[in-house]
Amino acid sequence: MKTNRLEAFSDGVLAIIITIMVMQLRAPKEMTWEALVPILPVFVSYVLSFIYIGIYWNNHHHLFQITKKVNGKILWANMHLLFWLSLIPFATSWIGEDHLMVVPVVYYGIILFMSGVAYFILHRLILKLHQDDETIQKAYSNQNKAYLSMALYLIGIALCFVHPILGAVCYLIVAIMWIIPNKQVEKYIE
Amino acid sequence: MKTNRLEAFSDGVLAIIITIMVMQLRAPKEMTWEALVPILPVFVSYVLSFIYIGIYWNNHHHLFQITKKVNGKILWANMHLLFWLSLIPFATSWIGEDHLMVVPVVYYGIILFMSGVAYFILHRLILKLHQDDETIQKAYSNQNKAYLSMALYLIGIALCFVHPILGAVCYLIVAIMWIIPNKQVEKYIE
Amino acid sequence: MKTNRLEAFSDGVLAIIITIMVMQLRAPKEMTWEALVPILPVFVSYVLSFIYIGIYWNNHHHLFQITKKVNGKILWANMHLLFWLSLIPFATSWIGEDHLMVVPVVYYGIILFMSGVAYFILHRLILKLHQDDETIQKAYSNQNKAYLSMALYLIGIALCFVHPILGAVCYLIVAIMWIIPNKQVEKYIE
Amino acid sequence: MKTNRLEAFSDGVLAIIITIMVMQLRAPKEMTWEALVPILPVFVSYVLSFIYIGIYWNNHHHLFQITKKVNGKILWANMHLLFWLSLIPFATSWIGEDHLMVVPVVYYGIILFMSGVAYFILHRLILKLHQDDETIQKAYSNQNKAYLSMALYLIGIALCFVHPILGAVCYLIVAIMWIIPNKQVEKYIE
Repeated sequence: MKTNRLEAFSDGVLAIIITIMVMQLRAPKEMTWEALVPILPVFVSYVLSFIYIGIYWNNHHHLFQITKKVNGKILWANMHLLFWLSLIPFATSWIGEDHLMVVPVVYYGIILFMSGVAYFILHRLILKLHQDDETIQKAYSNQNKAYLSMALYLIGIALCFVHPILGAVCYLIVAIMWIIPNKQVEKYIE
Repeated sequence: MKTNRLEAFSDGVLAIIITIMVMQLRAPKEMTWEALVPILPVFVSYVLSFIYIGIYWNNHHHLFQITKKVNGKILWANMHLLFWLSLIPFATSWIGEDHLMVVPVVYYGIILFMSGVAYFILHRLILKLHQDDETIQKAYSNQNKAYLSMALYLIGIALCFVHPILGAVCYLIVAIMWIIPNKQVEKYIE
Repeated sequence: MKTNRLEAFSDGVLAIIITIMVMQLRAPKEMTWEALVPILPVFVSYVLSFIYIGIYWNNHHHLFQITKKVNGKILWANMHLLFWLSLIPFATSWIGEDHLMVVPVVYYGIILFMSGVAYFILHRLILKLHQDDETIQKAYSNQNKAYLSMALYLIGIALCFVHPILGAVCYLIVAIMWIIPNKQVEKYIE
Repeated sequence: MKTNRLEAFSDGVLAIIITIMVMQLRAPKEMTWEALVPILPVFVSYVLSFIYIGIYWNNHHHLFQITKKVNGKILWANMHLLFWLSLIPFATSWIGEDHLMVVPVVYYGIILFMSGVAYFILHRLILKLHQDDETIQKAYSNQNKAYLSMALYLIGIALCFVHPILGAVCYLIVAIMWIIPNKQVEKYIE
């Protein structure tokens, strides 16, 4: 099976997730700069989640640039990834409603961890399907970043119980790690 | 007529249906794990509906993998299928608002049954248009699963009046039946 | 310029319009069949608007099946059409909220009339750009249906002031007229 | 990397932004023409924002018509543009809720200015990646319109403090400037 429809469907879901979040930004009644202050935490969490979805889209885009075919398992693994990502707007709005509290930040971390796991599974299944394709094996074999980020998420979740800001910092480190997508893939394409 | 735009439009509608449901998950006011408990049934029905839409997308994807052309009737049959699927978020939120009650579960069953009928009609019309194409005839001829699932939906709806949980179990059996899409199609593509 | 991105964008907008309307169907608090009765008019107007958007998508799909290129004017004419269609959910929810009243039905008629005009302009501009293409000229030259439907909308709007049901019947007649898209185009494709 | 998925994702996001705004038009309770009067400013700001997103889509469409490849930086520059555009519905609803006031119009101007900057950066990065492609250099080299519009936005923001209507007029002038997309690109395609 070709990858084009899987990509189109994923693009659609990610485009909606990224824009649904902006609907939680409600215009204040008053027309002053002060009226924007209570919206600020919602805005900050919108920005962070936008970046997160952006990172996933970019990496998903890279992952399927050199993938040539998919099977039924990959379709479901992709659906599984989209499921966890679709919970990000909920986690965002829960965090955004007040200053940082333990439970919502832990919850956000769990969603991020599960998204990471789902991406890892998807990655694995694509590798397995292209066993005979040497270039794909080379371009995708290195999964250290995936292991490291899953570990960091778990550490972040644990650190939330010390202080939620420590957890948030861990999630941020993972984000920065992934802003630059797989360089090996870009090399291969060239 | 080619199938690409029908696929793109269906992908768009299904992507929106699947993500609209998540908007019904409203972040609780309190920042405790207990605050998530009342959202749990809404969450469970979100998961189930996500899987259902996922199944339809997977099967729709398989159905159009080897379909080569469409006509006006197929465009409308597809629109008809999307109509019934678009009612799933409503049915989901009705079930989700409280513990299982007879009427919403029956209603959910009717929507699922009608979606099944719409998919069956679409399948039929594609078969008819490709009458001279032997491979498509072979790959798509077996409609036993469709007949069985429509029967199970009807049984499920009837069993709701005994207890809604029995109806829900019937719907679940159909879902499991369809998680693995048409193997014959995958063989044909290879 | 090629038509593919114009088609993709239009598909996206129409897919969202068609599914946004379903969000206005709010699940009732009670779990009885009677609780569905007050939602019935909203449901009926959802069905009608779904069919209307379906008709526009089908005809748009036909219009661009044999269109080979677009220019800046066509991009804007298409945007203009999408603008009027984007107002259908608003008109739908206004009608749906109560039994048929003069003003909302007149308003709905105006939106439908303006959508018809926008489609007519788009059609014209495509014809003009393909002046040297004989088959497109033949397939698209007949615009009688467009003239007739614009006349029927105006008659419908006028009749609303006698009784809104008469206006609604006029709109329905136009819908039935367009359910079967341009047969000439299908012939040409074959 | 090819441009098709970047285009599809951008189309999805822009399609959602343009239609999300219409959800802020809530049907009035009464069924009279007078009931539409309080919605009028929201409607006007919907029309203007629709035109703005339309302009960006048209120009984005032109920009990628002759772009042949993208890199990681361009993916992020595009995401950055979509981020600012995604804030337009919020700015629209803030302006729309009452008659023109200084702060929301200034805010709207900032969003428009930042979108302009993001588009400029995207444009630059595409130029840089296609350094060896003479036709792209010729078609895209002229960025006077971009400089002029950024200057006009800043002037508009400043003039808001005299009277918000003056700011709004400045934004409108920029919009009119961009309604006709890059003619050089159209020439090149022919």
